[in-house]
Amino acid sequence: MINGKSMLVVSAHAADYVWRSGGTIAKYIAEGAKVYITVLSFGIRGESNDLWKQEGATVERVRNIRREETLKASEILGIREIEFWDLRDYPIELTTEHEERLVRKIREIRPDIILTHDKFDVLNPDHNRVSEFVVRCSIMSNSAGVQLEGTNVTKQMRLFGFEPHQTELSHYMPGSFIDITPVYEKKVAAMKCFQAQKHLIEYYSERAFMRGNHAARISGNSAYKYAESFANFFPVVGPELY
Amino acid sequence: MINGKSMLVVSAHAADYVWRSGGTIAKYIAEGAKVYITVLSFGIRGESNDLWKQEGATVERVRNIRREETLKASEILGIREIEFWDLRDYPIELTTEHEERLVRKIREIRPDIILTHDKFDVLNPDHNRVSEFVVRCSIMSNSAGVQLEGTNVTKQMRLFGFEPHQTELSHYMPGSFIDITPVYEKKVAAMKCFQAQKHLIEYYSERAFMRGNHAARISGNSAYKYAESFANFFPVVGPELY
Amino acid sequence: MINGKSMLVVSAHAADYVWRSGGTIAKYIAEGAKVYITVLSFGIRGESNDLWKQEGATVERVRNIRREETLKASEILGIREIEFWDLRDYPIELTTEHEERLVRKIREIRPDIILTHDKFDVLNPDHNRVSEFVVRCSIMSNSAGVQLEGTNVTKQMRLFGFEPHQTELSHYMPGSFIDITPVYEKKVAAMKCFQAQKHLIEYYSERAFMRGNHAARISGNSAYKYAESFANFFPVVGPELY
Amino acid sequence: MINGKSMLVVSAHAADYVWRSGGTIAKYIAEGAKVYITVLSFGIRGESNDLWKQEGATVERVRNIRREETLKASEILGIREIEFWDLRDYPIELTTEHEERLVRKIREIRPDIILTHDKFDVLNPDHNRVSEFVVRCSIMSNSAGVQLEGTNVTKQMRLFGFEPHQTELSHYMPGSFIDITPVYEKKVAAMKCFQAQKHLIEYYSERAFMRGNHAARISGNSAYKYAESFANFFPVVGPELY
Amino acid sequence: MINGKSMLVVSAHAADYVWRSGGTIAKYIAEGAKVYITVLSFGIRGESNDLWKQEGATVERVRNIRREETLKASEILGIREIEFWDLRDYPIELTTEHEERLVRKIREIRPDIILTHDKFDVLNPDHNRVSEFVVRCSIMSNSAGVQLEGTNVTKQMRLFGFEPHQTELSHYMPGSFIDITPVYEKKVAAMKCFQAQKHLIEYYSERAFMRGNHAARISGNSAYKYAESFANFFPVVGPELY
Amino acid sequence: MINGKSMLVVSAHAADYVWRSGGTIAKYIAEGAKVYITVLSFGIRGESNDLWKQEGATVERVRNIRREETLKASEILGIREIEFWDLRDYPIELTTEHEERLVRKIREIRPDIILTHDKFDVLNPDHNRVSEFVVRCSIMSNSAGVQLEGTNVTKQMRLFGFEPHQTELSHYMPGSFIDITPVYEKKVAAMKCFQAQKHLIEYYSERAFMRGNHAARISGNSAYKYAESFANFFPVVGPELY
Repeated sequence: MINGKSMLVVSAHAADYVWRSGGTIAKYIAEGAKVYITVLSFGIRGESNDLWKQEGATVERVRNIRREETLKASEILGIREIEFWDLRDYPIELTTEHEERLVRKIREIRPDIILTHDKFDVLNPDHNRVSEFVVRCSIMSNSAGVQLEGTNVTKQMRLFGFEPHQTELSHYMPGSFIDITPVYEKKVAAMKCFQAQKHLIEYYSERAFMRGNHAARISGNSAYKYAESFANFFPVVGPELY
Repeated sequence: MINGKSMLVVSAHAADYVWRSGGTIAKYIAEGAKVYITVLSFGIRGESNDLWKQEGATVERVRNIRREETLKASEILGIREIEFWDLRDYPIELTTEHEERLVRKIREIRPDIILTHDKFDVLNPDHNRVSEFVVRCSIMSNSAGVQLEGTNVTKQMRLFGFEPHQTELSHYMPGSFIDITPVYEKKVAAMKCFQAQKHLIEYYSERAFMRGNHAARISGNSAYKYAESFANFFPVVGPELY
Repeated sequence: MINGKSMLVVSAHAADYVWRSGGTIAKYIAEGAKVYITVLSFGIRGESNDLWKQEGATVERVRNIRREETLKASEILGIREIEFWDLRDYPIELTTEHEERLVRKIREIRPDIILTHDKFDVLNPDHNRVSEFVVRCSIMSNSAGVQLEGTNVTKQMRLFGFEPHQTELSHYMPGSFIDITPVYEKKVAAMKCFQAQKHLIEYYSERAFMRGNHAARISGNSAYKYAESFANFFPVVGPELY
Repeated sequence: MINGKSMLVVSAHAADYVWRSGGTIAKYIAEGAKVYITVLSFGIRGESNDLWKQEGATVERVRNIRREETLKASEILGIREIEFWDLRDYPIELTTEHEERLVRKIREIRPDIILTHDKFDVLNPDHNRVSEFVVRCSIMSNSAGVQLEGTNVTKQMRLFGFEPHQTELSHYMPGSFIDITPVYEKKVAAMKCFQAQKHLIEYYSERAFMRGNHAARISGNSAYKYAESFANFFPVVGPELY
Repeated sequence: MINGKSMLVVSAHAADYVWRSGGTIAKYIAEGAKVYITVLSFGIRGESNDLWKQEGATVERVRNIRREETLKASEILGIREIEFWDLRDYPIELTTEHEERLVRKIREIRPDIILTHDKFDVLNPDHNRVSEFVVRCSIMSNSAGVQLEGTNVTKQMRLFGFEPHQTELSHYMPGSFIDITPVYEKKVAAMKCFQAQKHLIEYYSERAFMRGNHAARISGNSAYKYAESFANFFPVVGPELY
Repeated sequence: MINGKSMLVVSAHAADYVWRSGGTIAKYIAEGAKVYITVLSFGIRGESNDLWKQEGATVERVRNIRREETLKASEILGIREIEFWDLRDYPIELTTEHEERLVRKIREIRPDIILTHDKFDVLNPDHNRVSEFVVRCSIMSNSAGVQLEGTNVTKQMRLFGFEPHQTELSHYMPGSFIDITPVYEKKVAAMKCFQAQKHLIEYYSERAFMRGNHAARISGNSAYKYAESFANFFPVVGPELY
């Protein structure tokens, strides 16, 4: 049951969480979960190609546009808490201080689920570093000996990985499909906030259709029209076989 | 929810289903599922080593002992329907007639879940053949053009694979852990019916403990004491992330 | 250079070659290659679900519809030679006689390129068998000791595998992308011949768009709008690095 | 210690055992082991290309030449027992009768080690079938219920796989290197018996040099000049770490 | 032959070497090898959960308890040399200075065998870093150009990797099994020193039983009751096939 | 067509580019390409074992010999531009400054092709780091937001990976074979410049022969006598199937 669950989404760049999990986020919110977003960088260097082609682009301008776009998207999705670390990207560098910061975040939110980048993205070294970083911090958060004043140790939560852009080349293996049919329009609206990455809007719309087709085929449930897929960092553990 | 579900378990030899899924079967029955077992062979040639060491062993005697043992085990687990195809094993040969027979069975039972051998068992070629056979028949069953009088096409059901004996050498990857703590004693009692494979009783008891430890570790739920694991033939598809 | 090349496409069912390589076939024909299609089965049992839902469906009717549809599609693509083996499918059974028949075909056509199903399709055992069969026959064709009256041994040709429906679950790894932008409309027209598999028309249209996006991204050539991808059975061998 | 060990080598075609394990065989014989060779086919169709280019080649002539060549090679290596099943190759077909025959052979010889083809050879479907066949028969041989008059069940022996021709494409992973420096000349002499496959003599001579280089590098022992490598079907089990 | 060999064991945390290789260490010592242990951290942050649950736990107290426990365990195993680097763990950070220190250690001890963590542990990033670090240092140690005053270059030694906790999820592949039946009680006694990780004592006792079962099955030697398994970093190189 | 293409080769140590791509480089130059070499280190610590065995070896002497050798080799191959970063090796450390330097280089040269080390070399951690570094820098170079004064963003170029020394243990998969038959003597002459690594001259000569044999076999073109192989970082994208 989604109601009452909490979810933390850690996004390397400002728009990653929308392309890859916007539908799932919208669905979780619609059904009563609390969703928190941590955006590590605005993607100023690595994911703003179209903005840099505009006359007079500066780091400051690109940052402002990206911030506005992602805030707007997060509002459409219904997110109440989004935080920006504003790290430099391409490459993203993650230090001991960042580890402590994320562990604190995890211990504060105490998420049932963490969504972040999957282990390997053939075209995006930032995603790979963030994936390893989030896994490491979640393990630290669960360890009683990692003493941080004012925090309490967590229990092992569920981790899931985003689909990378080119899945086969990134050795991506879908472990879970989430039906996003009821919230699909909300995801499309959120994606449309990112004018610097227009080509991705069509791409991820069709991706949702394709994953919906896959989900329907492997479940025998033809009601699934749109879906998002995720990699499972761990096996499913539970009272029955899903 | 388990209640009302139906499950078909296809077992290459007479005891496979008990070692590898006895706890899950007991649990499903306890919670209101219908479980059907199809035993393809008695394992007379391949899985009755200790019986063949007894004075005066013959095929007929071994068959009778194996049949009695597995019937007794199935009663302990609470199974109401078990059928025996009594095929020759080591090696097991599966023909077009067997395909039709299993497709009929699937269309009659209309299982939500099929449990059978996983894709590869380094030490048991029969298991490999049965795995491929069951997958093939389930796909045929779901195809409207496979016309068999008196049957109706099925929808894609869930498929899960048993743990093989030596998991790493068999490239086995657990996808789902099922908590069997409440029914663990029932599984042990069922295993004890197989006097020809005594060494496996201790082995699979400890395996359940070890999988319970794994399940607790990756779920953060320390109430899991005993578990069984299965390979997922397909990703999980559903309304939420499990 | 495509002009003057010859290509043999071996398709398990009547429509496979259109969904998976229709654009590449159209392109090769447009640029002067000779393309031959061998259709092993009409897909009567396995790939005609919608036809079987029609009132009064019989094997004969389904066969006729599938034959007409695929003939029409092949005409749109510009194929001059298509042959139908009309084997039973689901499952497809391939014998020594079929091996001899395909070796004869290969030695007659002497293709530079063979396109067929890739090694593994998680949802279609027929595709797996056909893939293995075609590879085996190509190796036999290249072996001088496989003496068939009236035929001459061939040299190793290039082999490429079709994309399966669910690529990641089938461990599919794209090795080559072919730009089909100039012939995309032709592929769409050919796909529209298959009224029994309407849902696949949209699916493979979007697939072409997605593969075009991938091709543009990894080549730096934004002129690629639509593409098909194939698995490489062998490494590229040649005078330069492509 | 090699002295007193027995080894069974199962070769799909007449020369495979020489190219891939001739040095190891010579070494085992030199140090007191008994080596038995089972040659399943003469490779008339698949591995006699040069013989078929000779004027007036017939199946009978090719068979005779291959038999003479391999007998001569086996004498050079010091083998006392070689048996020929003379099966048709390309493709090799292995039936229930062949299974019984090989199980009898294994139970008669009771080998400590079986050498045969590794699991996958990208260019040789016969090798794949023979590999699976030998593994299956060895497991049957070890099973008490596989009752064959006049035979006694065996214990699990060690199995090792030959290097295929193109190792990386065949997913070959070397598990063991055997130093063949002292018997290298014997292997070369044995290889020279196969006039129909002259190009392979240079190839496998250089292969031995290359594997010697690898063996020296990973062992720190620069005395290794020539080596053969094998895949391990099972982990090493023993009193110490080798 | 074990007698006269030297072995270096590099352990990320204070108890790793006991759980994963205590039996092999005891056996090597019993048969005349010299065994050296390098413990990189006390596991204060990452592997002392139960100690942190005790009233009044501090870093200093946890360190002292862990040190005492591991010293006691090492005495039981018969180790004469154990050194503690006392690094911070979770995460463990390894610098150029640590590289030089370990290279010096390796060149001083000149081990025939190095045991350390295997390449990947899904639940323990420290283990992954230590594995890569030890491999890197061993290669540096073998390179004449890595000039360190007072040291002499080494030759390539054997490297083996510990079993991680959840083997399949960590892509662990056992390459070697060591029979620890004669020293099993010693391992159990050593494990019992770690009161902070009580649940692991039962876990690794059963693990030894299970690995003994595996070892017996794949070797045909039923005398193996308890075993430890290791990953092989390199193929076996030697005078015979083990 | 090679004529007019530009190629950047990034070599971890002074001789890597010669052993692994000397033939391809010579061929590209012979046919009108511009080839640029960036040598990150002289391999003083890691790849100069024989030089360190000479009486009176010092870092300075080793550096001078390596520099002279590689300059001589590059002249034989016909290279006009080679640059030396003279980093310390074993281990090689790559910083943000190095990233900027390589991005500048890539943007200045604007290569169609980058050759560098493949993803994993089991025996050489430097190679692994350089591989990851070059991929990362190429992606940064292609990103408009990575603003470096005086440079212009590039488009995605082709990347290929060198063969490591022990290919199977390094999970190396050849994706492309280049025929180097016409320039083979030039490669041999270039290799002979490296007197400190004499054993590798024979090794890589035989390797070229072996790869020529492989190339001939999988292409059916027996004119290929010598070849080099490379891993494809990306699928082939183009107007036809190569």
